[in-house]
Amino acid sequence: MDIKKEILRIAVESQQAFRQSLTLGTETKNVVLTEMALALRANKNALLRANKKDLSAARKAGQSRAFLDRLALDGKRVEDMAVSLEEIARLPDPVGEVIQSRRRPNGLWIHKVRSSIGVVAIIYESRPNVTSDCVGLCFKAGNAVILRGGSESMHSNIAIFSVLQAVLKKHAVAPGMINLITTADRKAVDYLLKLNDYIDVVIPRGGESLIRKVVQLSRIPVIKHYKGICHVYVDEWADLNMAIDICYNAKCQRPGVCNAMECMLVHRDVAVRFLPGMIKKFQAGGVEIRGCPLTCKIVRGTRRATEKDYRTEYSDLILSVRVVDDIDQAIAHINTYGSHHSDSIVTSSYENSLEFLRRVDSACVYVNASTRFTDGYQFGMGAEIGISTDKLHARGPMALEELTTYKYTIFGNGQVRQ
Amino acid sequence: MDIKKEILRIAVESQQAFRQSLTLGTETKNVVLTEMALALRANKNALLRANKKDLSAARKAGQSRAFLDRLALDGKRVEDMAVSLEEIARLPDPVGEVIQSRRRPNGLWIHKVRSSIGVVAIIYESRPNVTSDCVGLCFKAGNAVILRGGSESMHSNIAIFSVLQAVLKKHAVAPGMINLITTADRKAVDYLLKLNDYIDVVIPRGGESLIRKVVQLSRIPVIKHYKGICHVYVDEWADLNMAIDICYNAKCQRPGVCNAMECMLVHRDVAVRFLPGMIKKFQAGGVEIRGCPLTCKIVRGTRRATEKDYRTEYSDLILSVRVVDDIDQAIAHINTYGSHHSDSIVTSSYENSLEFLRRVDSACVYVNASTRFTDGYQFGMGAEIGISTDKLHARGPMALEELTTYKYTIFGNGQVRQ
Repeated sequence: MDIKKEILRIAVESQQAFRQSLTLGTETKNVVLTEMALALRANKNALLRANKKDLSAARKAGQSRAFLDRLALDGKRVEDMAVSLEEIARLPDPVGEVIQSRRRPNGLWIHKVRSSIGVVAIIYESRPNVTSDCVGLCFKAGNAVILRGGSESMHSNIAIFSVLQAVLKKHAVAPGMINLITTADRKAVDYLLKLNDYIDVVIPRGGESLIRKVVQLSRIPVIKHYKGICHVYVDEWADLNMAIDICYNAKCQRPGVCNAMECMLVHRDVAVRFLPGMIKKFQAGGVEIRGCPLTCKIVRGTRRATEKDYRTEYSDLILSVRVVDDIDQAIAHINTYGSHHSDSIVTSSYENSLEFLRRVDSACVYVNASTRFTDGYQFGMGAEIGISTDKLHARGPMALEELTTYKYTIFGNGQVRQ
Repeated sequence: MDIKKEILRIAVESQQAFRQSLTLGTETKNVVLTEMALALRANKNALLRANKKDLSAARKAGQSRAFLDRLALDGKRVEDMAVSLEEIARLPDPVGEVIQSRRRPNGLWIHKVRSSIGVVAIIYESRPNVTSDCVGLCFKAGNAVILRGGSESMHSNIAIFSVLQAVLKKHAVAPGMINLITTADRKAVDYLLKLNDYIDVVIPRGGESLIRKVVQLSRIPVIKHYKGICHVYVDEWADLNMAIDICYNAKCQRPGVCNAMECMLVHRDVAVRFLPGMIKKFQAGGVEIRGCPLTCKIVRGTRRATEKDYRTEYSDLILSVRVVDDIDQAIAHINTYGSHHSDSIVTSSYENSLEFLRRVDSACVYVNASTRFTDGYQFGMGAEIGISTDKLHARGPMALEELTTYKYTIFGNGQVRQ
C-alpha cells in the first residue's frame, strides 16, 4: 500500500464528507451519538478482546505501569465512553448560533453565524477512550475527523472505530465523517500534516515531544499547549490558612496533570510565617521542595532551585518555591517562566486581585482558588477536547464551541455598492 | 549592524512593552490616538517631503503607474490618515468585554474576558497609509505592533512612524508598543518570522506571492487570505433585472479588489434569457468574457474558459461564466474552485437561499447582494485591518475584535478540587 496515496485519499474523502454533511440536523447528530453509545455497550466483549491483544503486546514490550493503565479498557471504562457520548448528545448544538447580527443603513442584514470548521485531525497517544470522545465531539460540532492514535492501542482503536462507523452507515451519514489511520508506518503523520488544502486544524494530545514534533512538521494550523507550568502566588494580604489549602490542592490532588502547580511564589512579608508550616505539610505529603536562597534560609535543609527548575514541568511531587519582593515581581516571574496556562493569587486585597487578573498573561487566571479547576467539565462546558495556551482561536479549556468557526451570512434585496 | 540581533531586540522589546502596557486605560489610548492624528496634520509638510524622495526613486526605478499611485501621499491622504486615527479613537475599546460569565455550583465565578493578543507583526507593501492605520488599530486593541513595509516606501514610513512614536513618548507609553523595521535587508523578515516566542501573530497584507512566502517561512501563526475568487450564482428563480445589477456591480465597480466577482454561474433554465443581455452589458463595460461551452453556444464569439480560468483571480475586467444544471452544481463549483472568500446567490426562492447560505463554505455568503460589501466599514465594524479566509480565530473582515483574544478570569473564595 502506498501510504502517501492512502493518507491523501482519507483527507480528500473527509473534506467531501464534511461538505456533504453541512446540512446534517441536530436531531440526526444526536440520534447517531446515542446509538453509538448503545453500540459500544453491545460490543463490550469484542472491545475488551481487542484491548487484551494491545495489553499483552505492551506488557511484552516492557511498557510502564502508568502506560498500561492508560491503555487498559474494562467494563467500567467502556461504560464511561458510552456515557460520555450520551452527554455529548445532550449538549446544545453549537452550529447555527447567531453570535452577532447587524442591520446596516442600506438594509443589508448581516449575521455572524457559528459554523463547523471542516476537517479536524487529532493525533494522540495510546488511550483508547480518546478515540470515541474525539469522534463524539467532532461529530456533534459537524466536523469530519481524522484520528491517529498511538500504535500500541491499534487493536482497541480499530475495534472502537468499527463499532462507531457502523452506526454512521446505518443512518446514511457519509462514512468519511470519521476516519482512523491504521497503518503502523510513522511517516503517515508526516504526510498528513502537509495536507493543508484538505485539513483545517490539527489538535495534538500528549506529551511535549509529540506536540513539538507536530508543530515542527505541520503546514496546517495547530491548537495546542506544550506544557503546564502553573503558579500560585501567596500575596502579602493572603489568608494563610486558605493559602495552605489551595497550594496543597494545586500541587498534590493530582500532580501528573497540566493544571497542577509547579512553582509557588510567596511575598517576603509573609514568608517567615507561611513557609515553615506549608513546607512541612508538603513534605508530609511526599513533595520534594526546591527553594530560592531565601526559602532555603527560612527552611533549613531545603534543596536549592536552579534557573532550570523554574522552567520545568515536573508532573510529579516536586515543587519549586520562590520568595518575591512584591506582586510586580510575582507577575513578572509568572509571565517570564510560566507556560501561560493557569496561575492563581491568594489575597484579601481587592487592588491586588484585579492587578493580578489583568497583568498575568495566561489562559486562566484565578483569585483564591486552586489551578486544578482548569478543565472543560469544571468550567461548565460539559466536555473537553484539550486545553490551549495559544492566543488565537481557542485559549484555555476547549469543548464544542472551540471546534467551530463562524461565517457571515448576508441577506439583501438587491444592494449594490456605490 | 547585525540584522539578526536587531530584529531579536525589537521583538523582545515589543513583548516587554506589551506586558508593561496591559493596564493602559481606554482614555489614555484614545488621547494618544487623537494626538497622533493632530501630529500627522502638524507634520504634513515633512511627511510629503519624505514621500517625494520615495516617489522619485520609484519613478527612476520604472515602477508602474498603479504602484506610484499607491505610494503617493498628498494633503488629502495625510488628512485621511489623521481622520482614520480619530475614528479608531471613537470606536469602543474591545479589551475587557466580558464575553461569557458563569457561576459554578461550587461558587467559582468564571469570566471569559476579551484581552489583547500581545505582539502583532504586519508585513505589507509600499502603501504608507497602512503604517498609521495598523499602528492605530493595534494600539487601540492593546497590542504591540512590529511593522515591515515595502522598501520603496521607507522614507515615508520612517517619517510617519517618527511622528507617531513622539506622541507615545510624550504620554510615557512604552515606545516598544510600536516598531518599524527600517533595514533594507530582506532577510529581516525571515528572522522575524522565526521569533514565535515573542510574536503572537503575523498579518501579511499584499499580493498572493508575498502571503505565500510569509506562510512558508513563518513559525508564528499567520492570519491571511491568499486571494478572492468570488462568485455570483444566478439561480433559476432569480429576478433577472436584479441579477444584472448585482453581477455588474460585483465585477465592475472596482475590479482590482479581492471581493470583486471573478466567475458568474447561471442556472441553465434562465441562461438563454439572461446571458445575451448580461454579456452585452459587460462587453459595453469593457469586460472580457470567458465562457463554458454552453455560454459560448448561447453567445456566439465568446472565448472558451479553461479549467485554469475557474481558479484564477483576474483582478481585472475579465470574467469567467459557467452555466450549471442546478444549485447543487453551483455550490459544488464554488466550494471546489473558489477561495472561500465571498459568494452570492440571486434568487427569489426561500429554500434555495437557505440552502446556499448553509452549504457554501465561505467567509461571507450573500443572498441578493453584491459581493463588494465584504469590507470592515461596510459591515459596520468601523475599521478594517484585513480580510481572512482562514477558519481559525478570524474569518471575513477583521477589525478591532479580531485583534483580540480572550482569557478566563476566575473569582474564588478558597475553592479546591475534590
